[in-house]
Amino acid sequence: MANMLLEARRELALANRIVANEGIIDAFGHVSMRHPENPNHYLLSRSRAPELVTPEDLIEYDLDSQPQRDPGTGQYSERVIHGEIYKARPDVNSVCHHHCPSFMPLLATGTDYMPIFHLGSVGGIRPPFWDQRDEFGDTNMLVIKPEEGASLARALGKHWMVLMMRHGVTVAGTSVRACVFRSVFSARNAEYQVRAMSVGSDIATLSPGETSLAGQISSKTTGLTRSWEYWSMRVANKAGGLGPVGPAPVRSAPGKAKTSPRRAKAARPKVKPKGARKGRRR
Amino acid sequence: MANMLLEARRELALANRIVANEGIIDAFGHVSMRHPENPNHYLLSRSRAPELVTPEDLIEYDLDSQPQRDPGTGQYSERVIHGEIYKARPDVNSVCHHHCPSFMPLLATGTDYMPIFHLGSVGGIRPPFWDQRDEFGDTNMLVIKPEEGASLARALGKHWMVLMMRHGVTVAGTSVRACVFRSVFSARNAEYQVRAMSVGSDIATLSPGETSLAGQISSKTTGLTRSWEYWSMRVANKAGGLGPVGPAPVRSAPGKAKTSPRRAKAARPKVKPKGARKGRRR
Amino acid sequence: MANMLLEARRELALANRIVANEGIIDAFGHVSMRHPENPNHYLLSRSRAPELVTPEDLIEYDLDSQPQRDPGTGQYSERVIHGEIYKARPDVNSVCHHHCPSFMPLLATGTDYMPIFHLGSVGGIRPPFWDQRDEFGDTNMLVIKPEEGASLARALGKHWMVLMMRHGVTVAGTSVRACVFRSVFSARNAEYQVRAMSVGSDIATLSPGETSLAGQISSKTTGLTRSWEYWSMRVANKAGGLGPVGPAPVRSAPGKAKTSPRRAKAARPKVKPKGARKGRRR
Amino acid sequence: MANMLLEARRELALANRIVANEGIIDAFGHVSMRHPENPNHYLLSRSRAPELVTPEDLIEYDLDSQPQRDPGTGQYSERVIHGEIYKARPDVNSVCHHHCPSFMPLLATGTDYMPIFHLGSVGGIRPPFWDQRDEFGDTNMLVIKPEEGASLARALGKHWMVLMMRHGVTVAGTSVRACVFRSVFSARNAEYQVRAMSVGSDIATLSPGETSLAGQISSKTTGLTRSWEYWSMRVANKAGGLGPVGPAPVRSAPGKAKTSPRRAKAARPKVKPKGARKGRRR
Repeated sequence: MANMLLEARRELALANRIVANEGIIDAFGHVSMRHPENPNHYLLSRSRAPELVTPEDLIEYDLDSQPQRDPGTGQYSERVIHGEIYKARPDVNSVCHHHCPSFMPLLATGTDYMPIFHLGSVGGIRPPFWDQRDEFGDTNMLVIKPEEGASLARALGKHWMVLMMRHGVTVAGTSVRACVFRSVFSARNAEYQVRAMSVGSDIATLSPGETSLAGQISSKTTGLTRSWEYWSMRVANKAGGLGPVGPAPVRSAPGKAKTSPRRAKAARPKVKPKGARKGRRR
Repeated sequence: MANMLLEARRELALANRIVANEGIIDAFGHVSMRHPENPNHYLLSRSRAPELVTPEDLIEYDLDSQPQRDPGTGQYSERVIHGEIYKARPDVNSVCHHHCPSFMPLLATGTDYMPIFHLGSVGGIRPPFWDQRDEFGDTNMLVIKPEEGASLARALGKHWMVLMMRHGVTVAGTSVRACVFRSVFSARNAEYQVRAMSVGSDIATLSPGETSLAGQISSKTTGLTRSWEYWSMRVANKAGGLGPVGPAPVRSAPGKAKTSPRRAKAARPKVKPKGARKGRRR
Repeated sequence: MANMLLEARRELALANRIVANEGIIDAFGHVSMRHPENPNHYLLSRSRAPELVTPEDLIEYDLDSQPQRDPGTGQYSERVIHGEIYKARPDVNSVCHHHCPSFMPLLATGTDYMPIFHLGSVGGIRPPFWDQRDEFGDTNMLVIKPEEGASLARALGKHWMVLMMRHGVTVAGTSVRACVFRSVFSARNAEYQVRAMSVGSDIATLSPGETSLAGQISSKTTGLTRSWEYWSMRVANKAGGLGPVGPAPVRSAPGKAKTSPRRAKAARPKVKPKGARKGRRR
Repeated sequence: MANMLLEARRELALANRIVANEGIIDAFGHVSMRHPENPNHYLLSRSRAPELVTPEDLIEYDLDSQPQRDPGTGQYSERVIHGEIYKARPDVNSVCHHHCPSFMPLLATGTDYMPIFHLGSVGGIRPPFWDQRDEFGDTNMLVIKPEEGASLARALGKHWMVLMMRHGVTVAGTSVRACVFRSVFSARNAEYQVRAMSVGSDIATLSPGETSLAGQISSKTTGLTRSWEYWSMRVANKAGGLGPVGPAPVRSAPGKAKTSPRRAKAARPKVKPKGARKGRRR
């Protein structure tokens, strides 16, 4: 496994932990990345809570969301969300699907997302809604079939975020860091918007021009770097955390997250539920 | 004590800690399970905060909520909630009673619970309300008498959750994990619903068909397993936590929770209030 | 110093930390107790944040709020709140003054406190409001003069909680534990009430009979004991906490909180602001 | 480097961590101080999240916000906020710029800040609004150009806080501690005000006289000292925190934060994103 791929896997595992640690995701939800060496493949964790994901948990999928070898473990049932978006959008290199509480009031009332401060511009102007019921009638609400994923990707269109009625949000980015940045700050903005709506109905949003100009912040390296350093530190320093799964320490043995001795023990989950590797799906 | 029972007791102690750690329960509230070897008995902690419960704290009760031997310690005064539901519902194997903040706005206004995202389906369609005052007039609001518990069980009927006006919620499940899953995600849904209602009055709920289909998620092993692993890890890693009371390490001495040396000390409460074992009730 | 007094001082220091740790108090606010051996005296910390209070910080005051010896350090400027209530109410043995966020919406709108679940009964039926401006015109809002404290005590009357417009809340109890229990659960109830009011204006409160019956919970030992054990554990286990200042370890050297070696260092504040012991008032 | 300057740098680094730890600032935002020995210069961190700032990260700027030597690293793009205010207001010795969530509902609706409890008086009476769009049309909302900073400083006028529509807040103080005190308690007040407005529209604010009298609290040493000790302790004790960057240990080697051995490792960020020192701006 080349170093670049190794680093990419570490970055993606860390991205999963960051979005969990920042409250965007809990036991459910996931972050993927397009394979850095093969644009027709992508990487996504096996079925487990994002806060626990390690580089070793990542499975390589083709764009039809088929694993490249028998993963011998449970897989996310909603992985077509990722595959179908990578298929439809060559400019997207990372996808995050979540059920962040901040968005729920918008998703339950069909209220438009509005950027109300500069960092909220990452959500774009009027990101579209998608309702699984429109095309597929009553379902269990999970996006499992390829045609469901393709429908969602069509709704996303050229936007970078799509709001899924009575379900959650799917966010795209040109890189893992950009996707995480967008996921976190669009959720912060949604939270503020909802609070603002409890004070008054006349909400001052960014103008289209401001949204466009401020949105470029998220494509600049400095903003991404500063946030990523901060969020990484919060993951690494978390009380009882699993220890850093940080980018880069290429010098460490391949496929082995580097942990300080004190954290070494914590880094392996003490509770391994039986059956977790038995190949069931969800 | 057989291994299966030992594991069950560990699972139930962990369940108590999980619901506390996830904010469903504070100093009050409790989770019980039907006895795995005797369906006419159930297990419930002695009177102490759920976050502190150990397998050794569990008392065996018959369905009239009488302890099978002198517990020599304080007992929960509201244990009839558990006994009467086990009596009325042979399909229920675990019960959780709580006063989660997320539900309070619904309980204080008599507002129906509405599933507004797929995981909220665990609360079912229009779970019933129960008001102790209707049948028993002014009380101290605690469900202490067998007839009060039986009344609550009747209100629950075939549902899996009953909302207790000006008091709290009682949740049932086919297993401890299913009961915890339902308790946590129904509380998350209630939180989101209340927030949504501050934005608009027209709330999009799951259709009955969606509720039914999505509700089956909670009976599938993968969803339960993924959540349980996540919540267990959060309990185990909690700063200053009591250490893992996880399922399974059957190899450890019976009746002794396995703790890492670093946590061994913390695992016994440093503050043992006098009288805590004097058999008073509440 | 007799053992009883030593224990009382530890209990009061722990009470300060508990109310801080439970979010009732931040840098400001305080908990006092009537002197266990001299009902005409009371104990209150020197001027410092409650979460940092140790038994050694406690100063003995007479009911005119004069220190019994030169404290050689800064004192709380608002200590007349405590002295005047002890003077007016012989049945009160502990007082907590706080600015808990949960109450602020009620204090800013003059909305009555309403018990909306059984534990909210600790606040009583329609606890009175007090507005310093009514009697004293424009002030800096602090209750500093004896006549201001006496006015507040008159407003409290026979109640156990008084709401101070544009300021905070003062809570009384028959014991330190009862006062802490009332402070915490009245704040929880206020939080729930405010959230409920965002859903609907028709709030179901406990009836007077229910309030009275449920209110007796807080005078029963089991409820207090269970909560106290829980809250003490949360203080003791807090990440980076100051270590236990628990009740009782009478065997330790007088005036010295017992701390585990690991915590011994943290137990002394690393940052000792200059002048903190220079006798200034606030 | 003289001891006074060394202490000042430590104080400013700690101030950055405190406002982050108290939730006023996240990855973005910053606190500066006027240079203690040269009133025509000021100190501000290089571009990094405030919670990670060390004394070594501080850069010395002139009032035109030009670094006094090549910093060899990324700088905050919005530093003109600080420079222009120091230029316009000789009585200001510290400035904090933030996007605290508590203020967002006011900033999105143009609702006046109202002091609703005594500590909220730190925000003053009707602090002014500023809208970058008024003078500069569509921008990326960042205050980058000197004329933008100067415009903001004019809006601030003689006040101590200015509300920036669709952006954030800028707070000034006569000292670092006063600025932090004002930043924290104005944010608490904004939070309470917003919550109060969900309960009723008739909000009781401090009278101008009360605001003025209570506002003097923040210029008294005791209140500042008590809060500073509390917030410093919370930073120092934070689980996995970076260790104390406290005031004063002058005995330690210049330019080297004193850390306990246990924390020494954590005190250096484990994750050093590449390029963080490459001189890019944001």
